[in-house]
Amino acid sequence: MFKKIGVVALSAGLVLSGLNLGTADAAKPDFTGKNSGNTNAKGNKVENVIYMIPDGFSADYASNYRIYKGEDAVWDSHLKGLFTTYSANSDITDSAAAGTAMATGSKTNNGIIGIDPEGNKLQSILEASEEKGKSSGIVATSTITHATPASFAAHVENRNNETEIARQYIEGGLNVILGGGKSNFLPASEGGNQEELNLIEKAEAEGSTFVETREQLLNIDKLKIDKGDKLLGLFADDALAPELHRGETEEPSLAEMTKTAIDVLKEDKDGFFLVVEGSQVDWAGHANDAAWAMSDVAAFEQAVEEAIDFAKKDKKTLVVVAGDHDTGGMTTGANDSMDLNASILHDVKATGDYMAAQLNTDRSNVSEVLSTYTGFELSEEEVQSIQEAENASLAINKVISDRAYIGWTSSNHTGADIPVYAYGPQSDKFVGFNDNTDLPKIIAEALKLGK
Amino acid sequence: MFKKIGVVALSAGLVLSGLNLGTADAAKPDFTGKNSGNTNAKGNKVENVIYMIPDGFSADYASNYRIYKGEDAVWDSHLKGLFTTYSANSDITDSAAAGTAMATGSKTNNGIIGIDPEGNKLQSILEASEEKGKSSGIVATSTITHATPASFAAHVENRNNETEIARQYIEGGLNVILGGGKSNFLPASEGGNQEELNLIEKAEAEGSTFVETREQLLNIDKLKIDKGDKLLGLFADDALAPELHRGETEEPSLAEMTKTAIDVLKEDKDGFFLVVEGSQVDWAGHANDAAWAMSDVAAFEQAVEEAIDFAKKDKKTLVVVAGDHDTGGMTTGANDSMDLNASILHDVKATGDYMAAQLNTDRSNVSEVLSTYTGFELSEEEVQSIQEAENASLAINKVISDRAYIGWTSSNHTGADIPVYAYGPQSDKFVGFNDNTDLPKIIAEALKLGK
Repeated sequence: MFKKIGVVALSAGLVLSGLNLGTADAAKPDFTGKNSGNTNAKGNKVENVIYMIPDGFSADYASNYRIYKGEDAVWDSHLKGLFTTYSANSDITDSAAAGTAMATGSKTNNGIIGIDPEGNKLQSILEASEEKGKSSGIVATSTITHATPASFAAHVENRNNETEIARQYIEGGLNVILGGGKSNFLPASEGGNQEELNLIEKAEAEGSTFVETREQLLNIDKLKIDKGDKLLGLFADDALAPELHRGETEEPSLAEMTKTAIDVLKEDKDGFFLVVEGSQVDWAGHANDAAWAMSDVAAFEQAVEEAIDFAKKDKKTLVVVAGDHDTGGMTTGANDSMDLNASILHDVKATGDYMAAQLNTDRSNVSEVLSTYTGFELSEEEVQSIQEAENASLAINKVISDRAYIGWTSSNHTGADIPVYAYGPQSDKFVGFNDNTDLPKIIAEALKLGK
Repeated sequence: MFKKIGVVALSAGLVLSGLNLGTADAAKPDFTGKNSGNTNAKGNKVENVIYMIPDGFSADYASNYRIYKGEDAVWDSHLKGLFTTYSANSDITDSAAAGTAMATGSKTNNGIIGIDPEGNKLQSILEASEEKGKSSGIVATSTITHATPASFAAHVENRNNETEIARQYIEGGLNVILGGGKSNFLPASEGGNQEELNLIEKAEAEGSTFVETREQLLNIDKLKIDKGDKLLGLFADDALAPELHRGETEEPSLAEMTKTAIDVLKEDKDGFFLVVEGSQVDWAGHANDAAWAMSDVAAFEQAVEEAIDFAKKDKKTLVVVAGDHDTGGMTTGANDSMDLNASILHDVKATGDYMAAQLNTDRSNVSEVLSTYTGFELSEEEVQSIQEAENASLAINKVISDRAYIGWTSSNHTGADIPVYAYGPQSDKFVGFNDNTDLPKIIAEALKLGK
């Protein structure tokens, strides 16, 4: 039942070196850091971009997170506006079409990465930056070959083809790759998903340093970008752990991966383009798991703090923070209450999935499990709702969300407009009402990629 | 369970002629129409303000409305940012505390109008404008004495004291009063709620023209503000009809009231301050009635078009559009669907309340009633859900919202951040992340009320 919205002109973009990253909107106020009085912008020149995407994060995640944290998040004061997210073939986008729009400035169909609906390959803003001599990197807490990071450095008709995405990463020009999904880089004979190829060996042979634990990452020798050194860090066979369970692993946090990526990339005098995804906010939203969502937003915020700390000193770095769509139809308040209570989620120490896996077959230990991992003593009714539920994990998450007064209306994405935050020179270019395809066009203008 | 958010500094305001409308935030970028390249702003001077409040309207109402309309709303391109709404004593505000914040720049407790939690009377931006010689007006589709308009021109400890609010209106300086709620101006002996007072006669004796039908409103003689002429229009004993049922009445539309108010007030060479509320978006939200919500948003949009049309010609009028809070936890999509379908709501010709009132005692005519007023042929399951529901109206609204893929999580307000749109000179002052108390402070700056 797709209804095309007629007003956002997709054809407004100009093709610049193969990249559809022209003027975002001729009628848009042309704010510049120089004239707008923007206190963030010391100068006007953008050399580096850190594009940070909390997957599934909408305005209601922002307002709930403020309650959870007890004060403004680091991004709140950098709010610039809202943007639309529909894909080429659906009112509600998936992460592939959203990532492609945010990376290339063009709409595509849900499921497709870096290719338009007619099959044309779309250059991404990261690839266009590489053409201008900049270094590049991608960081995520999912498999690094997941849809959102893939949209910046791969081109596949089907987002599930993660082995092909891995191959394109290693054969492409990425300087830094940090995340999960090691199995997509390894041959089947070594328990991986590649047919015969060992992409990790190939990368090492071509100058990459490979790391697979937090300790290794935090102790890498100094890499020299101008010598062609690269960094490949894959810290789990599949996705990394949810932030709630990070302590049980040897994985680095998103902030640690982000800081290391910046430390490596900043050595390039021509600048860099880094994409950082807070991947699991979306998965928490699909599960309607408020504690997972808020703790992964908190982990993402620490990564944003690393980026802004660097940008403050560097003064030539533009930091853009934008979710790709809402997940779950999260609301800030629910069930007729006039209170918000998200701060109780700090007491929750496990995901709903994890807690459900601790239940015995007849679920007679609901009270004990929930008491252990949430600190709540459940009411008779709450216990029963979990015992009788078809899906114990969803039922656990509902009990917790109800206590936190966080509402959900879907286990899928929604079509809510998404806030964009920006810090650094030319950040005021994002002010107002945009479409997701405008974001890379604005970044291209800021980087003068067409010039 | 109120958690105070510490960052928004309430004490940042300066007391200016009794009004707490100082600098909104010293650290905020100081956009001006002159330097920002804002294409809306031909000059910098603001003489008139039209402050338009769609009660209960949040970002999800905006995104659903865009789907309903099939294109951008008149406000979308004027988006400036988001603002927080919590009240002095609750995470989630009611319309009295929200209206007071948006009118006076100070937080108060839910339920209180124009008075702070310690009992101090708060001057509103409308009253401060009157002190500077400007004319003033209020327009609403609720009783005109309802919380939101009342916050601009009355001071009562309890929002339900609508007869006292009516008295304060007539004894105050308002030049134009247009809306519902005639009974609050009439003595009990004439079927009203005032004890002995006839406020309409009092107003007429003091120079007001009184009208009570659409025809009378559209044919008023030319009023002369400089002669002290005033306009009092009360078009129903209680609230006006929902937009869906306007045609069954002799009431003017919100756009007609707005246009007439502007026509009268623009005669004042010292300028004017007009407040326009789209009151019933909120009531539709409380009822989770998507068709009522969208049709009342459409009626509000026509009023905004009148305001912007005037501002375009006048060039010295600032139009501000901002809901006061979200109502209902509306989401743009629901129930795991990847489609949006709000355009089907055009076929719905009655509110859920109205349809429920057409059901017979055993609700055997659900199919017929729904078919008559929605154009839908209900499934067996949908019919049954309405027949078995405790509240037939809510069940009808759920069937319709489910078909439109609009989600709801509450029958009350939520704590979502709310978008602000602005058009005209100095509209860029609203850019970014604000609190509801910042809005009148920014308007006061634009009007140079402290100078």
